[in-house]
Amino acid sequence: MSVEDRIRESFARQTMMATLGARLERVAPGRVVITAPVLETSLQQHGTAHAALTFAIGDSAAGYAALSVMDPDVEVVTAEIKINLLAPARGPLLTAEGRVVRAGRRLVVVAATVSDPTGDVALLQGTMVPVSRPPR
Amino acid sequence: MSVEDRIRESFARQTMMATLGARLERVAPGRVVITAPVLETSLQQHGTAHAALTFAIGDSAAGYAALSVMDPDVEVVTAEIKINLLAPARGPLLTAEGRVVRAGRRLVVVAATVSDPTGDVALLQGTMVPVSRPPR
Amino acid sequence: MSVEDRIRESFARQTMMATLGARLERVAPGRVVITAPVLETSLQQHGTAHAALTFAIGDSAAGYAALSVMDPDVEVVTAEIKINLLAPARGPLLTAEGRVVRAGRRLVVVAATVSDPTGDVALLQGTMVPVSRPPR
Amino acid sequence: MSVEDRIRESFARQTMMATLGARLERVAPGRVVITAPVLETSLQQHGTAHAALTFAIGDSAAGYAALSVMDPDVEVVTAEIKINLLAPARGPLLTAEGRVVRAGRRLVVVAATVSDPTGDVALLQGTMVPVSRPPR
Repeated sequence: MSVEDRIRESFARQTMMATLGARLERVAPGRVVITAPVLETSLQQHGTAHAALTFAIGDSAAGYAALSVMDPDVEVVTAEIKINLLAPARGPLLTAEGRVVRAGRRLVVVAATVSDPTGDVALLQGTMVPVSRPPR
Repeated sequence: MSVEDRIRESFARQTMMATLGARLERVAPGRVVITAPVLETSLQQHGTAHAALTFAIGDSAAGYAALSVMDPDVEVVTAEIKINLLAPARGPLLTAEGRVVRAGRRLVVVAATVSDPTGDVALLQGTMVPVSRPPR
Repeated sequence: MSVEDRIRESFARQTMMATLGARLERVAPGRVVITAPVLETSLQQHGTAHAALTFAIGDSAAGYAALSVMDPDVEVVTAEIKINLLAPARGPLLTAEGRVVRAGRRLVVVAATVSDPTGDVALLQGTMVPVSRPPR
Repeated sequence: MSVEDRIRESFARQTMMATLGARLERVAPGRVVITAPVLETSLQQHGTAHAALTFAIGDSAAGYAALSVMDPDVEVVTAEIKINLLAPARGPLLTAEGRVVRAGRRLVVVAATVSDPTGDVALLQGTMVPVSRPPR
């Protein structure tokens, strides 16, 4: 199974991604793009996208960017991630681009940028941990 | 309108909270508890709760803890928040407790702990910014 | 060699701690206290303690708290740490208390509080990684 | 007084920078470079640069990058900053490049990269807060 296929399969198992309407748009080595519409069901109290939506696609794009450079028998989990929110996130579509900053054997440092049609709305920096792929 | 009523009204406007099944359980000055079930629609690829669910209720509990100590004409927005994931989060219910660490005039430092029935699953530390309440 | 002896020996090898005048005050399982005076050589541009001093003792207290719960053949290194500065840090003495939040086999989540005589001035949350002790 | 002069004057008042041997190398709008040698007095227990040195120049480069885009009557202070350490930092010289990610009226989001002769050793992401310049 190719790296992209593994990532697509993993993405498809994340029911949260379907709940948010997120799509895996592009997989390249060390770089993954995920988009999500700002659904009526994903809003915060002022009518813009909830930070959890921005976080969800930023964290996932960063995590899959890490996975894209791992061996096939490895999965990754988020150890920690920080998000700086730069501006209110408005629809119709948010785009998260995750990238690998440094891939070590035990830790992968990642970053992601989330943007809406007007520009960047969030910046994330975090750490992914490779773990043995659990048996299916 | 009491502080608790303001927070309940704001919470009710967050459609994301309804999507995730989250409930505002308790509001005290500087301390707010939010719970959420681990719905079939909130999972990551291994069948445990998606980090975005954990983040969503942790960030909201922290934000409303900040709001609980603000003047009535003020709202708060998340400037930044960091989450350390301590363990996989399993259902049936996650509980987030947010608290104010330091309330300044321009910034409110907050923290939150998210737990599942087996113990703590995440720790968050962040910054909320008071903003003038937008006209309705 | 006891845990406390190992930590004291490691601390003594950190020349930065001597440069900052830092002292290892207390070692308990999962909890370490370090103090440092606010020296004339440790200031930022407004005459209060430089954030690097606050960071230095907070990070070290957190790291040694992690080390205090590790096996004897293991050292720890900081993978990442975040500091929220709560108030200007003034002398004469800063006190950092580090503690273990969750000790895993591969990652140790830690926290630290730094205070001056007037109260807490910083809160840190980070991740330490156990590594095999390098041969001396 | 030019922006660069203001920054140089502020830098000169930071006694910690002199203690660490740090130098302000370059000031451009939204981008500042600071270097520091890895002095015998700046080490951690394994003989590489202490994380506090890496933090000190990364935080300062980021802070002065923020200051470089502020009005003359404003200073900035660090509200929070997170550092991911990518590799041990070795001498002879560390270089920190700070940059503005988003300059708002109340918050400035910043980032910095710290490198040694072999490559990047740390990545920082933080928030600076503009404050009125205190009377001298």
